Amino acid sequence: MKLLRYGPVGQEKPGLLDANGRIRDLSGHIGDLGPAEISREGLARLATIDSETLPLVEGNPRYGVPVAGSRKFLAIGLNFADHAAESNMPIPAEPIFFTKAITCLQGPNDPVMIPRGSEKTDWEVELGVIIGTRASYVTEAEALDHVAGYCTINDLSERDFQLNRGGTWDKGKGCDTFGPVGPWMVTGDEVGDPQKLGMWLEVNGKRVQNGNTATMVFGVAKLVSYVSEFMTLEPGDIISTGTPPGVGMGQKPEPWYLKAGDVVTLGIEKLGEQRQQVAAYSPNGPAA
Amino acid sequence: MKLLRYGPVGQEKPGLLDANGRIRDLSGHIGDLGPAEISREGLARLATIDSETLPLVEGNPRYGVPVAGSRKFLAIGLNFADHAAESNMPIPAEPIFFTKAITCLQGPNDPVMIPRGSEKTDWEVELGVIIGTRASYVTEAEALDHVAGYCTINDLSERDFQLNRGGTWDKGKGCDTFGPVGPWMVTGDEVGDPQKLGMWLEVNGKRVQNGNTATMVFGVAKLVSYVSEFMTLEPGDIISTGTPPGVGMGQKPEPWYLKAGDVVTLGIEKLGEQRQQVAAYSPNGPAA
Repeated sequence: MKLLRYGPVGQEKPGLLDANGRIRDLSGHIGDLGPAEISREGLARLATIDSETLPLVEGNPRYGVPVAGSRKFLAIGLNFADHAAESNMPIPAEPIFFTKAITCLQGPNDPVMIPRGSEKTDWEVELGVIIGTRASYVTEAEALDHVAGYCTINDLSERDFQLNRGGTWDKGKGCDTFGPVGPWMVTGDEVGDPQKLGMWLEVNGKRVQNGNTATMVFGVAKLVSYVSEFMTLEPGDIISTGTPPGVGMGQKPEPWYLKAGDVVTLGIEKLGEQRQQVAAYSPNGPAA
Repeated sequence: MKLLRYGPVGQEKPGLLDANGRIRDLSGHIGDLGPAEISREGLARLATIDSETLPLVEGNPRYGVPVAGSRKFLAIGLNFADHAAESNMPIPAEPIFFTKAITCLQGPNDPVMIPRGSEKTDWEVELGVIIGTRASYVTEAEALDHVAGYCTINDLSERDFQLNRGGTWDKGKGCDTFGPVGPWMVTGDEVGDPQKLGMWLEVNGKRVQNGNTATMVFGVAKLVSYVSEFMTLEPGDIISTGTPPGVGMGQKPEPWYLKAGDVVTLGIEKLGEQRQQVAAYSPNGPAA
C-alpha cells in the first residue's frame, strides 16, 4: 500500500494511492494515519479495504507528512562510503546518528526556507524508515518486522551550522522546513528488499545525486537494530538512513549551495518524488 | 504557581501544589497540562483559580512529567566553566546543544535503568526551561517572555555512548529513563530571576554536585534566543541548561558511575527535589 495524508497544513486527511495512481480518501475508515494505524494490526486492517470502494479525491491536493504523530526523527550520518569520502570524513566503524528537530517535518512539496544567515544550505536524498512496532534492543534479524514502511526524505542540512558552530550536528539539521517527507509511506511488503532502491536528486534540473541503497555501509535492518540499543523506537518514529554522494558540500571544483529561487527535485524507486521551491526565510513561512 | 501532573504512568491528571505543599486536583478545570494550558493565556486562566476551592489529593501519588505533549527535549552542553574543565573540554564560544530522545522523559521519582552494556551511566542536575509561547529568532530581551516555567531535571548520560561510539552526543543522552523532569513546573513569575538558583545532587547521600545557576556561561535568556535561531521552539518544548561540576566523569582521583541499587537525589532551589532508584535494564521497565 501507498499510504498518504493530503490537504492543507494541519487539516490533512488520510488516504492511499490506488493502482492507477489516484488518491483515494480513507477518512471513512480511519481518523488519521498515526501510530495506531501503521501498527502491524492497523496495516492489516487497511489491507482488507478494496481501494475501488474508497472515494476518489479530485484535483491535486497538497501532500502532508504521510504519518501523523511522529515523536522522533533520527538520521544516520556518512552511511555511503563515497559520501563519507566527499565529506572528507572516514567511513564510520559503527552507525553515526543524530537528531532532526521534529518541528522540521513537512510535506514533500512544501517550500524550503534558507535560515537567516545561512550560506551553506545543502540537500541530501535519503531513504526514510517509518517504525510500526515498538523496538527496544531488537536483533538485526527481527528489525524489519518493526518497520511499517518506507518513504523519500530530503535531509536538508546547513553545513556551517552543522560543522562549524560548536556542538553536535543537530544545529544544522533541524531548521524549520529541513525535513520534507513523502509523498507516501509505502508498506514494507510492497517495497520488498530496501537495499535495492535507486535514488536521485536534481537542483534546477541538474542531476547531482545518483545512488542506490545497495551501497549503504549499514543496511536498514542493522540501523533499526543499532538505534534500538540506545533508545526505544516507537510507532511513527522516522529514521533517515544517509545519503549517497553528490551533495553541495562535495561538488567539484567548488562546493555550491541552495539559494532562494532554486528548485530541488528528488526521488527514490518505488517511493515517489518530491519537489521543493527554495525561498528566503520569512517569519510567516516560505509562502509569505 | 507550581503546576504538576500526578498519577500512574499514562493516566496522569493535572494538579497544582498549594501554599501548604498539598496537591490539589485541576481536573475540574482542564483536561491536562499541555501546550495550550501553559501558554500565556492558559497560565493567566489558571492563575484566577482559588486553590482552596480545588479538591485535595489524598496520599502520596506518583509525579509524572509536569507538562504533557512535549515534542522537543534539548539540552545544553558544557554550560558551567568548571564543569567544562572537569570534562577536559574548552569553554564553548557559543552554546552547544544536543537532543535528548523524547522517549527518555519520565517522572522525577521514577527509577532509572542502566542501559545494557553500560559502564558509565552518569548524573547531571540541571535547570529545565519549559517553553510557553512559540519562539523563532527571538532576541535575548524577548526570550523570557516565551518561557512558561522552570523545573528540575536529571540529564542522565552514558559517557561511553556519548563520547566514544562515534557521532553525536545524542547516543548517550536519550536512553530510556534518562530524562526525569519535575516534580513541578514552577511558573516564571514565581521563580523570578532564573540565574540565582542553588542546585545540588547526591548519590547514596553523598553530596557530589553543588552549584548555582549564577555561574552559567550562557544564561536562560541567551539560550532560548540562541536555540530559536536554529529551530522554532513550541509550547511544551523543554531545554535543559547544563550542569555544574561534580559529575561522575569528573570525580577525583578516579571517575565513578551509577550502578544498580544506587539512589540519586537532587534538587534546585524553588523547583523541588527528585529521587531515583537505579536499576539494571529490564525489557519491561525498571520496576520489573
